Amino acid sequence: MPADVPMLLRFIRELAVFEREPDAVKMTETQLHGALFGDKPRGEALLAETQAGAQGFAIWYETLSTWTGRPGLYVEDVYVVPEARGAGIGRAIFVHIAKLAVARGCSRLEWSVLKWNENAIRFYESLGARAESEWQKYRLSGETLAALAG
Amino acid sequence: MPADVPMLLRFIRELAVFEREPDAVKMTETQLHGALFGDKPRGEALLAETQAGAQGFAIWYETLSTWTGRPGLYVEDVYVVPEARGAGIGRAIFVHIAKLAVARGCSRLEWSVLKWNENAIRFYESLGARAESEWQKYRLSGETLAALAG
Repeated sequence: MPADVPMLLRFIRELAVFEREPDAVKMTETQLHGALFGDKPRGEALLAETQAGAQGFAIWYETLSTWTGRPGLYVEDVYVVPEARGAGIGRAIFVHIAKLAVARGCSRLEWSVLKWNENAIRFYESLGARAESEWQKYRLSGETLAALAG
Repeated sequence: MPADVPMLLRFIRELAVFEREPDAVKMTETQLHGALFGDKPRGEALLAETQAGAQGFAIWYETLSTWTGRPGLYVEDVYVVPEARGAGIGRAIFVHIAKLAVARGCSRLEWSVLKWNENAIRFYESLGARAESEWQKYRLSGETLAALAG
């Protein structure tokens, strides 16, 4: 819900620190509010809470597969606070999103992991996920994007 | 426009053949129409036409970056018919999408290429794009997705 935006942004920043990119998060509360609760939401979020309070979150958005003809879900962020790891919260988050994907007739649930994050990779493989090996992602951003746009 | 859906689907199938997955396309015209022109469109398409007729296409959708706080565009498919390659149509398609990305304040334009497709890789590098090397994509689909959903 909208009141969760400040906590979500705090967790997004904690995740960026863990990902060794502490200065990467330029997003503001206003931008996150707009992305999740604006006129045209571009993503969805889950805040995982226990009696001890908020313990983690996930943010995802719908994708489109021209092969399957069905939507997919791409998990942009998933995070569990360090002191709550190993208690099944991460798995519960993925089960929640997987149920949502199945309920919507999605063909895929995808996400990306930093290649050095071995703990996360073991966890993802324990969920039955497989690493993509055939495709290489390419990106234009900043100056290269502006240059191509002319 | 909606009348382009049959041609787009024909090109999607031609692209799958080129990608050595000739049986991969399960999408129907109804599904493609819904994805592009339904109540809640999940993607956008461009059909590239010359006086000789339709020569290629692209389909993309908006993504969400929790770091930049801005949307991105992910190009799901891009294709130029074999007889029209080398004439600048692919570049024109990317320039069109890059302009759109800049106009919308997007932080990124991304896509994926099959690792064996050296011609495409040379073309993408000529656009100034860089290969993603830090992140590994993971996927749940079919039985593994259903199993996790329970």
